[in-house]
Amino acid sequence: MAHIYDTKNKRLMIDTTTALELVLLHGSVNTNVLEVDLKDGLDYVLAQDVISEIDMPPFRQSAMDGYALHMGDDATYTLVGEVKAGDNNNPTLQKGKAVRIFTGAPVPITANTVVMQEKVTVEGTKITIEEPLKENTNIRPQGEQIKLGGVAINKGTTIKGVHIGFLASLGVTKITVCKKPSIAIIVTGNELKSAGTKLSYGEIYESNGAMLTAVLNELGYQNTSVITIKDDYGKTKKVLNDTIGKHDLVIVTGGVSVGDYDFVGKAFDEIGVEQVFYKVKQKPGKPLYFGKKEGASIFGLPGNPAAALSCFYIYVYPLLKKYEGAEHTSLPSISLPLLSDYSVKGTQAQFLKARIEAAGVTILGGQGSAMVRAFGDANALVCLPVNSTEIKKGQIVKTILLPFK
Amino acid sequence: MAHIYDTKNKRLMIDTTTALELVLLHGSVNTNVLEVDLKDGLDYVLAQDVISEIDMPPFRQSAMDGYALHMGDDATYTLVGEVKAGDNNNPTLQKGKAVRIFTGAPVPITANTVVMQEKVTVEGTKITIEEPLKENTNIRPQGEQIKLGGVAINKGTTIKGVHIGFLASLGVTKITVCKKPSIAIIVTGNELKSAGTKLSYGEIYESNGAMLTAVLNELGYQNTSVITIKDDYGKTKKVLNDTIGKHDLVIVTGGVSVGDYDFVGKAFDEIGVEQVFYKVKQKPGKPLYFGKKEGASIFGLPGNPAAALSCFYIYVYPLLKKYEGAEHTSLPSISLPLLSDYSVKGTQAQFLKARIEAAGVTILGGQGSAMVRAFGDANALVCLPVNSTEIKKGQIVKTILLPFK
Repeated sequence: MAHIYDTKNKRLMIDTTTALELVLLHGSVNTNVLEVDLKDGLDYVLAQDVISEIDMPPFRQSAMDGYALHMGDDATYTLVGEVKAGDNNNPTLQKGKAVRIFTGAPVPITANTVVMQEKVTVEGTKITIEEPLKENTNIRPQGEQIKLGGVAINKGTTIKGVHIGFLASLGVTKITVCKKPSIAIIVTGNELKSAGTKLSYGEIYESNGAMLTAVLNELGYQNTSVITIKDDYGKTKKVLNDTIGKHDLVIVTGGVSVGDYDFVGKAFDEIGVEQVFYKVKQKPGKPLYFGKKEGASIFGLPGNPAAALSCFYIYVYPLLKKYEGAEHTSLPSISLPLLSDYSVKGTQAQFLKARIEAAGVTILGGQGSAMVRAFGDANALVCLPVNSTEIKKGQIVKTILLPFK
Repeated sequence: MAHIYDTKNKRLMIDTTTALELVLLHGSVNTNVLEVDLKDGLDYVLAQDVISEIDMPPFRQSAMDGYALHMGDDATYTLVGEVKAGDNNNPTLQKGKAVRIFTGAPVPITANTVVMQEKVTVEGTKITIEEPLKENTNIRPQGEQIKLGGVAINKGTTIKGVHIGFLASLGVTKITVCKKPSIAIIVTGNELKSAGTKLSYGEIYESNGAMLTAVLNELGYQNTSVITIKDDYGKTKKVLNDTIGKHDLVIVTGGVSVGDYDFVGKAFDEIGVEQVFYKVKQKPGKPLYFGKKEGASIFGLPGNPAAALSCFYIYVYPLLKKYEGAEHTSLPSISLPLLSDYSVKGTQAQFLKARIEAAGVTILGGQGSAMVRAFGDANALVCLPVNSTEIKKGQIVKTILLPFK
């Protein structure tokens, strides 16, 4: 597999499905776990199943404000007490007796149904039920949501706010999660200038580092750093070598094309990065590179920001999830009707910035590799297979949902 | 509008559309802005348009590795130099002359097209072009993405990672955003116990506070606090009164139903909260309360966690976005085919925890108001209008996408 970097070798160009498979097959996987307070668990992936230490609900719970009854032979019952939420009394009800009860309160063991207050006429301590009774109505059985010893949340789940809520309801205070990757972003190019300074002719502001950092932070990856290097072969080699040993994931943007000053591929080869693939039959992102060395995964993304970001969502995102042992690796996708005709340029597979609307999906204008602007309006990527031509309004297209808040 | 809190008054029950309209009409709106570093801008809403101070690209930029030509009369050109990315030389090309050029480099003003290197044969300083030429090919015009003075991102946009990338490319270092709301979450109920202690009979672990805090944090709202109160009228009134003056948004869970110990509605009334509505024809979340006082918006959500969370996404999320002046307030929704039959219980409008798959949407099991577990598997809410009955597989349903990372 190693040492097959060859800018002239077109035979190595692979399809998008194979590329993703190779990323998931060769990408590095985390083996370190850590224990975090439940409240700090957001965005981590669970490293082991969380087992419930209680039944939930922990007791038979009234689902209504009303009356708990020991069902008798006629519609009239005698009130013998009251149970509020939080009460720990458990009055014994003989047949024909009832207690006033409230939502969330424990239903007395001797009660066999709860009737909602709207269906009851009260006169002193006598109540009359206005509807036919059925056993176990309006009662949440003990352990209905989960039983003691049951798996509350599976290993591999990425923790969302709602999971924190559910685990809190089980009394969980700590969870064991996978360590997140340390990520280095290396941006290359003589033309890159830092913001806050004035551009000379031929210069542009560096934005891939800022963009990828922000997108990673957005997804819950905070352990990131950005390194900028000029188009200098010696320096490129040295920085790559120094960086790869120190991080779990290295993302390089630019320098992987076939220009005379694109030193990254050559440097990868020379410092012993094992190339998994280089070049994918796709637009944007044809010169995508993926390799590995000493437990680190290494991506070479295009220098054009929009192309880099598409490749990030299609290939880097799944690798991050796989690294953490997540059950789902790729972004969710859905089949949707296209809302207007689209004429495909080129024969490669396409990832097109798109916007999901109520009725379907629209491919946005400004698809150029450098045009990151349209990405700001996008909430999805439409995927078209190789050799697509004219796509007509109403045709069903595969649509990848982009993360949002 | 004020003082119409009446637990017996069923006439006030409104439909879901009206409820949302009233939330957006009466909800408080932020008037404070702050300036933040671009890199810290994630999840804020822009308080004013960001105007570009440069053309982007700032010069005519080569989109390819190849040759920039001053088009002549035949297919052969004389090479007179080289322009790399980052170079600031601007060689003058006579007709029939060419320079070697690389992606991202400034195209000489006197060149009128760029031809990719794969279409060129080179012999010393002579190059022969193997394809018909067209003016301005492979050149990104100056200002193609945006021109100096143009609006880069509109006021009301919620800043995502990609926006940070785009603004970085324009040299922007600071943005003016809306202040985020200060949010108090008040959880009520005698039955609530803190995690880390043992439950007595009749008690459950407090989870709404933990859940709503986590869900708010997940959305980028960090300024939250949780207050727990027992079912005690005096205390409820005092805490509500103290809290409302200090926060922009107050979310109370539980205590707004019609039980004898549901003190929240009565307390709202007595401390002068202006009720906007109470009770919505929906499931879950019928006893939803919304009111306002002194610039604060006040929600009374159901005590059942799953019902509280549904109401959060349908009503509180839009209010948060409106408060910040966001262009889009509600979560995005889409029409999708149902993947299996579903039998509706009740006549109210329904918000059902659901999972979007490639081919459509499945309504999940465990829809009970207390069943927060199914929410963990959900990535959407299916909305069914009032009086829905049997929904058949293949029928198109309105599906609200839930935020995800």
